[in-house]
Amino acid sequence: MSTGEPSILAISGSLRPESLNTMLLRALGEFVPSTIRYEVVNDISALPFYDQRLEVDPPSSVLDLRSKVHEAHALILASPEYNYSYSGLLKNALEWLSRPVGSAVLEHKPVALLGAAPGLYGTVRAQAHLRQVLHGTNSVVLRRPEVYVNEASKKFDDTGKLIDPTARSLVEQLIHNLLSHLPENFEAA
Amino acid sequence: MSTGEPSILAISGSLRPESLNTMLLRALGEFVPSTIRYEVVNDISALPFYDQRLEVDPPSSVLDLRSKVHEAHALILASPEYNYSYSGLLKNALEWLSRPVGSAVLEHKPVALLGAAPGLYGTVRAQAHLRQVLHGTNSVVLRRPEVYVNEASKKFDDTGKLIDPTARSLVEQLIHNLLSHLPENFEAA
Repeated sequence: MSTGEPSILAISGSLRPESLNTMLLRALGEFVPSTIRYEVVNDISALPFYDQRLEVDPPSSVLDLRSKVHEAHALILASPEYNYSYSGLLKNALEWLSRPVGSAVLEHKPVALLGAAPGLYGTVRAQAHLRQVLHGTNSVVLRRPEVYVNEASKKFDDTGKLIDPTARSLVEQLIHNLLSHLPENFEAA
Repeated sequence: MSTGEPSILAISGSLRPESLNTMLLRALGEFVPSTIRYEVVNDISALPFYDQRLEVDPPSSVLDLRSKVHEAHALILASPEYNYSYSGLLKNALEWLSRPVGSAVLEHKPVALLGAAPGLYGTVRAQAHLRQVLHGTNSVVLRRPEVYVNEASKKFDDTGKLIDPTARSLVEQLIHNLLSHLPENFEAA
């Protein structure tokens, strides 16, 4: 299990600097208690494509991300929806984080999902697929609330602050529920 | 639409040289009529991770694969199942092949799915996710037969020939059905 200060790691499944999902993850910082370290990983493209042959001696990019996830008490994942599913970029990272089988950093890890999209559906299909993947990795995925930030370009102000009341309420609940998975002494923080 | 000699392009979602899925795609060659060109792409790791910013001037790896898919009259996709879904590697390629919207090479392209795995389920979950993705890309995905080559390491001989009678029969039917999507003058080939 993770040790050290309580922490949450957020990983974005997009690479664009102006990504709505990365923006959403950054905006979550406002909702995380100051006693809990919160970090957003916004570029997982340094990982190679998953290749079992590299498991013998994984590159440092893989070891670094595995170490970050291992140290974190909980994860938050946000993926853009491409072609009715999650991004290949994010799935590739999950491949690395799900090995080696039996001691993978995703096993038993509390994970919250959310997503943002310009259209009406707010990554609902991508998140449904991700839930199946994270069942495969034996992670502890929050069931509620489901957070689909649709028409997302209207829901932030110029500084990246989340301003939509419904979205704010859902995100607040999500963080609250995720904190309940942190070790007991951190819950009151 | 594609022109030139009738052709089928097969893409593997794995990188390992000894991949069961790549082996399966190679074994399909036996079932494709000799008048039809059949090519297996067994390494799509030269593509960068999908990034919308690169759409202005895509790298040659992207243009090359788009061109191959554009020229092919039909596609066959085989993905390993990682964490109850398709590989991030294959999804990343599909991202590139699904852009630009409106003129993407995957639109209206006939696609057959199949897969092989050492276990009992033969990539059934990965293929279910892929079907949703390929509905997103507006591709023409064969409905039947569904081909899940389970316990696949037992089903090839030392030369890579598919020897399991059930698998051979299904694959034969798959190719037959896929050929019916080729232009009419090629069907009799």
